[in-house]
Amino acid sequence: MDAIEFWFDFGSNYSYLSMMRIRGLAAAAGVRVVPRPFLLGPIFKAQGWETSPFVLQEAKGRYVWRDMERQCAKYGLRWRRPSVFPRNGLLAARVALQGEGAAWEFAFCEQVMLANFAIDRDIGDAAVIGAILAGLGVDGGAVIEAARSEACKSALRARSAAAQARGIFGAPTFFAGDEMFWGNDRLEDALLEQALRHR
Amino acid sequence: MDAIEFWFDFGSNYSYLSMMRIRGLAAAAGVRVVPRPFLLGPIFKAQGWETSPFVLQEAKGRYVWRDMERQCAKYGLRWRRPSVFPRNGLLAARVALQGEGAAWEFAFCEQVMLANFAIDRDIGDAAVIGAILAGLGVDGGAVIEAARSEACKSALRARSAAAQARGIFGAPTFFAGDEMFWGNDRLEDALLEQALRHR
Repeated sequence: MDAIEFWFDFGSNYSYLSMMRIRGLAAAAGVRVVPRPFLLGPIFKAQGWETSPFVLQEAKGRYVWRDMERQCAKYGLRWRRPSVFPRNGLLAARVALQGEGAAWEFAFCEQVMLANFAIDRDIGDAAVIGAILAGLGVDGGAVIEAARSEACKSALRARSAAAQARGIFGAPTFFAGDEMFWGNDRLEDALLEQALRHR
Repeated sequence: MDAIEFWFDFGSNYSYLSMMRIRGLAAAAGVRVVPRPFLLGPIFKAQGWETSPFVLQEAKGRYVWRDMERQCAKYGLRWRRPSVFPRNGLLAARVALQGEGAAWEFAFCEQVMLANFAIDRDIGDAAVIGAILAGLGVDGGAVIEAARSEACKSALRARSAAAQARGIFGAPTFFAGDEMFWGNDRLEDALLEQALRHR
């Protein structure tokens, strides 16, 4: 594939960092980005985890919120610690699938991430998602209805199964061809790998 | 403390990356480094883990070895995947405690890491540790005997308990004052923080 794949979960805080950074960095590297929203929940469940490891591992959890403050300061990104974590990204992911290839796809994903991690909104709430779509000039009612269709639900299930089949264990994850890179800290490495493959 | 603290486990592959990078980067930043060898085992056990998460989580484990190849290539570091992982760093950690403040302290730590991650030796073997000490002009017999004393054993237990008390959950971990940074990917951030505190 002549593009980097960007696999993310709307509830994942480190996915937020990559979401806000990837468009600019990819443009600078001359690399195209294909967003791949998926759900981490089934992957965590397959490990026997009922929620995020940042909740299950207390010491790591405490660290992560301080790390996020520092990382956002470093990258010049807005940040407010979500009052609920991890938030349910199911509806947002289904809507993002509906937007695949549309002009509003990337802007929608960024706005959902900002809603969760910069202004502390419940991204599982259809009113919040509808307002984001409306702000982008999209008919939110129609898109959300389509997002609730059986076709869309099974498309998201297939996407999350594909994530697991490719060896994804966390988010964000990037693919440059078959090379998998895990974590916002590997975004630059992944983009360089993709750029070198297609120069 | 007017130095960055570098907490590591000799069995930890990401600690290897930091061990080989920190002296040069710290010198360039004008920052002093205090090595803090400790054992991750008791911290993992307190989580209910009997071994490394890279062994327990199969998909993550597979990824980590590819990531190490790429990271070592990026940093220009030697690399051979250890035939046993994680190796027992108990004796090496006790010897490093014996070397605290000595001229050979840092070189010993580097050589142990290279033995484990570049030439695939059993660092739990007293003969391997003795040969490293001899190569540094140190009386290995006397140091290893002291490393096996009750005083040294309890010093290492206290060190590992201190790690847990400070919220350490993995390695490497750096402290610039009270600011904790986890992982080789945060080494540069930690050094910058320490440099800014003491400029």
